[in-house]
Amino acid sequence: MALALSLGRRGQGRVWPNPAVGCVIVAQGRIVGRGWTQPGGRPHGEVEALAQAGAAARGATAYVTLEPCSHHGQTPPCAQALIDAGVARVVVATTDSDARVNGQGLQMLRDAGIEVSLGVGEAEARRDHAGFFRRVELGRPLLTLKLANSFDGRIATGTGESQWITAPQARRVVHAMRSRHDGVLIGGGTARADDPSLTVRDLGVDHQPARIVVSRRLDLPLMGQLARTAAEVPVILCHGKDADPMLVQTWRDLGATLLPCAARGGQLDPADILQQLGAHGLTRVFCEGGSALAASLLEADLVDELVGFTAGLVIGAEGLPGVGAMGLEALRNAPRFNLRETMACGPDILHVWTRP
Amino acid sequence: MALALSLGRRGQGRVWPNPAVGCVIVAQGRIVGRGWTQPGGRPHGEVEALAQAGAAARGATAYVTLEPCSHHGQTPPCAQALIDAGVARVVVATTDSDARVNGQGLQMLRDAGIEVSLGVGEAEARRDHAGFFRRVELGRPLLTLKLANSFDGRIATGTGESQWITAPQARRVVHAMRSRHDGVLIGGGTARADDPSLTVRDLGVDHQPARIVVSRRLDLPLMGQLARTAAEVPVILCHGKDADPMLVQTWRDLGATLLPCAARGGQLDPADILQQLGAHGLTRVFCEGGSALAASLLEADLVDELVGFTAGLVIGAEGLPGVGAMGLEALRNAPRFNLRETMACGPDILHVWTRP
Repeated sequence: MALALSLGRRGQGRVWPNPAVGCVIVAQGRIVGRGWTQPGGRPHGEVEALAQAGAAARGATAYVTLEPCSHHGQTPPCAQALIDAGVARVVVATTDSDARVNGQGLQMLRDAGIEVSLGVGEAEARRDHAGFFRRVELGRPLLTLKLANSFDGRIATGTGESQWITAPQARRVVHAMRSRHDGVLIGGGTARADDPSLTVRDLGVDHQPARIVVSRRLDLPLMGQLARTAAEVPVILCHGKDADPMLVQTWRDLGATLLPCAARGGQLDPADILQQLGAHGLTRVFCEGGSALAASLLEADLVDELVGFTAGLVIGAEGLPGVGAMGLEALRNAPRFNLRETMACGPDILHVWTRP
Repeated sequence: MALALSLGRRGQGRVWPNPAVGCVIVAQGRIVGRGWTQPGGRPHGEVEALAQAGAAARGATAYVTLEPCSHHGQTPPCAQALIDAGVARVVVATTDSDARVNGQGLQMLRDAGIEVSLGVGEAEARRDHAGFFRRVELGRPLLTLKLANSFDGRIATGTGESQWITAPQARRVVHAMRSRHDGVLIGGGTARADDPSLTVRDLGVDHQPARIVVSRRLDLPLMGQLARTAAEVPVILCHGKDADPMLVQTWRDLGATLLPCAARGGQLDPADILQQLGAHGLTRVFCEGGSALAASLLEADLVDELVGFTAGLVIGAEGLPGVGAMGLEALRNAPRFNLRETMACGPDILHVWTRP
């Protein structure tokens, strides 16, 4: 199952709206098939592994990181494929909470006389599929918020100088993290100030996550990196319903996807932004700031994971904060996260926290 | 030598202005004496170990974490004690840069026909004795700056609520760190706002570091924790030469030590504060804020170690910063530190950085 989980993660960031499933088929103590959900979401992991195993699947054990699907979607159900291949036993890490599956996949297997074991590696599988589950259950993607800070929590000097606080090693890890998400999200202010490309670079990865910008009025540079590359790498713009129709049309012509979102109190409602991204199919979103967007997502309790890179330098109180004003009234109301891990990352530290 | 270094550290925080030296005497493969510098700085570690070894020291090997002293101070020189005991070989981690020793201790041993090896465990020994060396070489103590922050670098909410950002485990580690320093340093603002006792609690430690407060005008609460306990646990006040003589006398009567320091630009000069503390004999000082004092020490390049505790909660930009305004003009001028280690500390993380 550990191998199946590891294989499954290869699909993260490139199979949305589908789950990134891994499957290993073992016959007489030997691995005869390995598969994972392919880019675009099809074929599913089980089908890949069965194709590799061929006739060796008969009487074998299949390890799958998520309950095999039981419904006819754009592909026939994987549960049926396992039955047809003559698999004797299926070990499943966790059930699929999609209403179209939700235990029916396991039932199909049992009805066909297959021995089913459930819950092996469940905690890790639930973490790997957290984005898929969030979308199925709450209609929104998993949201990871990343900040690259100085020791004293600043992301730039008072004059906006931010290159570089962290070292190349940290930036490389950020690119790897981007590649395992469906989309990279920033606020309009950051898009204007930094004109970032938000692509995955220098890792030999052939896949790019969507670039998502939140901008109520769509006042984004029309000659910037994102506009110039929107035809090649997806750009998704979350904007207000009152945005200038000319700008909406211009960005559409440039190749961007436009998602009108509800406003609340003069700002785009962060909950609706995530609902719109979920409706568009995204399951894993990686937010890289700026400070106002980070604050609004935290305030609305929409952040599932916090990723911090902290460098050993001090900027002082004139520096720009990583998280903007949150209107916090008492310490007990501050959003709290549980530590997952901390480690050195080149000369900096990396610390990861998750929603309790 | 690893054991000698470990024994030596037992004296940290309680032997100033002396170095905290450890010594192990080995005869025929067996440990016959272990010693470390005793509270108050005497007897020295070598003398302790030799007393334990007795006649077994004859022909034995002594492992010492710092070059044995060669001068008659308040005790006879340790080098002579090793010679008198008939030790055959002395293994020394590092030389003593005190002008009264500086190689002469090793020479005395060699002249007496003792085999001397130098440099075993030197890096660790130089770190352990860094406070002693700082004072001998620069006239000031080693300065460690500790900050307990939220994920976004805040030490309190906008209304000043700071109890508690970090968990009891982190506070316990802070108390252990205090006990290994000669003094705990805070700014006057923190003394007024928090009225802390700055003592080491709940660790079974019978020793208390001096409590040091920087307050130019000595406008500190005369009925507060520090004033009430100044007769029992040392209080050192670094104040301006223009402080009210009545207040100076009052604090002296309460039992505090008063150190007048030079001012510069309306503030006490941080470099002179540390020189005065060095002149008073302190070798290891642990600064716990507040943000203005932290900023002035960092700006003056006086911080040798940074200790960060980071909790998994977010306060937002209204929160109070851990480091105040530093007047930084360009990122390349920001003070930078090298990572020593990062680890989980209960639900929080602990990260330690040192001067490059």
